[in-house]
Amino acid sequence: MQDFKLIQVKEGILAENDRQAEAIRERLRRAGTLLVNLMASPGSGKTSLILKTVQALGADCRTGVIEADIDSSLDAQQVASAGIRVAQLQTGGLCHLDASMVDQGLEALGEQDLDLIFLENVGNLVCPAEFDTGAHLNVMILSVPEGDDKPLKYPLMFRSCRALVVNKTDYLELAEFDLELLRQRIEKLNPDMGTFPVSCRTGEGVEAWTAWLKGQVRALKE
Amino acid sequence: MQDFKLIQVKEGILAENDRQAEAIRERLRRAGTLLVNLMASPGSGKTSLILKTVQALGADCRTGVIEADIDSSLDAQQVASAGIRVAQLQTGGLCHLDASMVDQGLEALGEQDLDLIFLENVGNLVCPAEFDTGAHLNVMILSVPEGDDKPLKYPLMFRSCRALVVNKTDYLELAEFDLELLRQRIEKLNPDMGTFPVSCRTGEGVEAWTAWLKGQVRALKE
Repeated sequence: MQDFKLIQVKEGILAENDRQAEAIRERLRRAGTLLVNLMASPGSGKTSLILKTVQALGADCRTGVIEADIDSSLDAQQVASAGIRVAQLQTGGLCHLDASMVDQGLEALGEQDLDLIFLENVGNLVCPAEFDTGAHLNVMILSVPEGDDKPLKYPLMFRSCRALVVNKTDYLELAEFDLELLRQRIEKLNPDMGTFPVSCRTGEGVEAWTAWLKGQVRALKE
Repeated sequence: MQDFKLIQVKEGILAENDRQAEAIRERLRRAGTLLVNLMASPGSGKTSLILKTVQALGADCRTGVIEADIDSSLDAQQVASAGIRVAQLQTGGLCHLDASMVDQGLEALGEQDLDLIFLENVGNLVCPAEFDTGAHLNVMILSVPEGDDKPLKYPLMFRSCRALVVNKTDYLELAEFDLELLRQRIEKLNPDMGTFPVSCRTGEGVEAWTAWLKGQVRALKE
């Protein structure tokens, strides 16, 4: 009985969420604004990647950021300090973002006159993958110290994303992380996923990642 | 309306879960078996810590392990290879463990003749903290590369645990991790939390952590 009730509620919520997500995606597509949903474990470098990427994209790509945190606004403060337009969503304990929260974030941010909006999801490799946020692109960050076995343990997250940024490549040796083995594991789950090894600390790999992202911004406007 | 329905279901489930958790805790207490719920982000070293700890505890502390994974049994295979009694729970996408899953795990493991059972929760700093698993002790692992700001971002997890193992201390310098600053942040959230810096790779700190845990096993039997 209990399981049955739960599933009914969940399915209803997911259907409503999917409708709202589709509306966000279509509205932003018409406006030529690419919404990128960035998902990762805690401490993998989501905010660092956003800061590095906005800097590398430069002024010709007008970028805004929606930060989601459970209970703080540290990341939004950091992004604002870098002179980037930002809105903070506090989920009040919720472990993921859904489309209605994103709608609130977009309203707070102001979605006009932007080419690209980053949505920094809650630090979690499980729940965020289950909810459509309305983003055009899901991107995952895996940080090297987390290990190259993560595709085996969190397959839904790897299947849900178009691109993977492997951050903290300056730890590759210390962490005994096998990038080739990771690629083989991803190949089995999601052969279309692009992989971008990056170190936000040293800047290594940021250019290739940013070039790909610029291509995605352009493609949406065509 | 949607929020109201959700809350009703959630509260009912939580109340039933709390009853089941209390029953597990009391049953194991009478048997003199300490149940430790280990929570952490993906890739923080939960399985490594279990392997190191069981080795350090030695044969006079009879230890079993319940592994929870979303979709694999890699960790259980690793634990079994080390000659440790282990059961695997697959959550099928669920982001946390609850008491009824733990009951199934205990049945699969066999809870007789054990002094200590580790419950390796799903890799997630959010949802697992909300559910009572029936454990006598909640222990959190924070790995150094995740950063010293995590108490500010995941306060419920830090409040829910009696002890914190700071793993991967061999990364302290590279990660510019400030252990003293972390301690100050924890002091504000949960002044009773014990902190144990450990490197599962080098073995540094494992002795102090294990000595504390042995004390907890003894205390339950008194």
